[in-house]
Amino acid sequence: MPSRQQLIAQIKQKKSFLCVGLDTDIEKIPQHLLDLEDPIYEFNRQIIDATRDLCISYKPNSAFYESRGVKGLQSLAKTWQYLPKETLNIIDAKRGDLGNTSDMYAKAFFDEASSGVSFDAITVAPYMGTDSVTPYLKYEDKWIILLGLTSNSGSKDFQYLVSKGGYLYEEVIKKATTWAGADRIMFVVGATKSTEFTNIRKYAPDNFLLVPGVGAQGGSLSDVCQYGMNKDCGLIVNASRSIIYASNGKDFAEAARAEASKLQQEMQVELEKAGVI
Amino acid sequence: MPSRQQLIAQIKQKKSFLCVGLDTDIEKIPQHLLDLEDPIYEFNRQIIDATRDLCISYKPNSAFYESRGVKGLQSLAKTWQYLPKETLNIIDAKRGDLGNTSDMYAKAFFDEASSGVSFDAITVAPYMGTDSVTPYLKYEDKWIILLGLTSNSGSKDFQYLVSKGGYLYEEVIKKATTWAGADRIMFVVGATKSTEFTNIRKYAPDNFLLVPGVGAQGGSLSDVCQYGMNKDCGLIVNASRSIIYASNGKDFAEAARAEASKLQQEMQVELEKAGVI
Repeated sequence: MPSRQQLIAQIKQKKSFLCVGLDTDIEKIPQHLLDLEDPIYEFNRQIIDATRDLCISYKPNSAFYESRGVKGLQSLAKTWQYLPKETLNIIDAKRGDLGNTSDMYAKAFFDEASSGVSFDAITVAPYMGTDSVTPYLKYEDKWIILLGLTSNSGSKDFQYLVSKGGYLYEEVIKKATTWAGADRIMFVVGATKSTEFTNIRKYAPDNFLLVPGVGAQGGSLSDVCQYGMNKDCGLIVNASRSIIYASNGKDFAEAARAEASKLQQEMQVELEKAGVI
Repeated sequence: MPSRQQLIAQIKQKKSFLCVGLDTDIEKIPQHLLDLEDPIYEFNRQIIDATRDLCISYKPNSAFYESRGVKGLQSLAKTWQYLPKETLNIIDAKRGDLGNTSDMYAKAFFDEASSGVSFDAITVAPYMGTDSVTPYLKYEDKWIILLGLTSNSGSKDFQYLVSKGGYLYEEVIKKATTWAGADRIMFVVGATKSTEFTNIRKYAPDNFLLVPGVGAQGGSLSDVCQYGMNKDCGLIVNASRSIIYASNGKDFAEAARAEASKLQQEMQVELEKAGVI
């Protein structure tokens, strides 16, 4: 569970701010894994081995595991066990509920004694407001990553509604920065909206931003860096499908490494350009 | 998986629009159950046996099961198996994510072959917009229940932001009614805001509203009915803690039945007053 300083140190050391998204789908992984006892875990294990020196974070997407019921949750728990201790291990769960229910979600993802897993960070949906978010903050060494501006087409429906304080996503970010500091809260900001980063940096100059949408979803890394990077980097850029499904043959792990390496090299250039390293 | 007509018929027959919320917490259930192999399931089974003629819906809150990891999910699957076929069986999961991820959540809760469970309805968070909600509608006989106005204190943070089209929760309800009809979409409307029901009925005259917050959270049933009931009833009122934790002794199921019965009798009066029965 890296602290903010440890995360920054890791970015400088690995010259990378890459998060590998483990959106592991039984229908997309290589055929030769399907005979194994736990193909999902085996796939993840090999992806992790192939990429851990190139990335600073892993992000299993909870839905992909939940879709397989009990056995999916077993794969998730085994994957969590295998994740490196130094990386920021995010569960992408987008939970948000009443206070007493958020307490339970915090147990589900942060309390190993209760659920068998303890991720470093969780993505959280803001619609239900303060008491739906703050229970996660009781776990002192953990992060929450609040949905700000997402990268999907439906983000236009509500996130861009304008009220007195600006767009809804601006209100969310402004309010959330009053709940805790940049050492505890990050925001999800979709990479397909790179010009909005300037705007978001007004309210959240120091917070890390988790940026999905580079790669399969078509966002531009250099735009994201131009508008979103701060002096500590301040970005964690996620790629899922473009890395983990780079090949569906026996060379899937090597192919994933090649894709991750390409992104790491682009990131190194950006970090040097911005003077972070 | 009751259709709208079947749901209405059941309300008239049982003279009830009660949903029993299965927020089953290992720390709150009676001690004598703790020696059994699956105390959570055993508690739920007895609650269901004691209440099924008094209610028209059950709503397990996913967080409570997830908090116990793999064994929690096993309890949830067994509970789902045991739920009556005639009741509307809602999984309270409040999921909302990108289209391809929502597809996976739909599998997790609607596709028995994939996950081991197939609930009739799921609660969904609206923040990510259209493509985060519509994947659930591909399952033709299933319902989605979108968060409109929630009953927690944090609902004030964002749901009441005013934009050109009114409050955010109004925008959500207006937009969602264009996605599908009242035979597929319901809304969560917190019972602590009963005067808002009049407002919501302008946009969603025919939709069923799932109303939490009566009982432990302090909402008034008669206010909810006065402002929210339509000619088909149009309400499903949830009570969780006030029913299932009415006693924590060996008589817990009887005590739960007594509480459910009290609510059913109040509901019968309201249904008669409104001319639904």
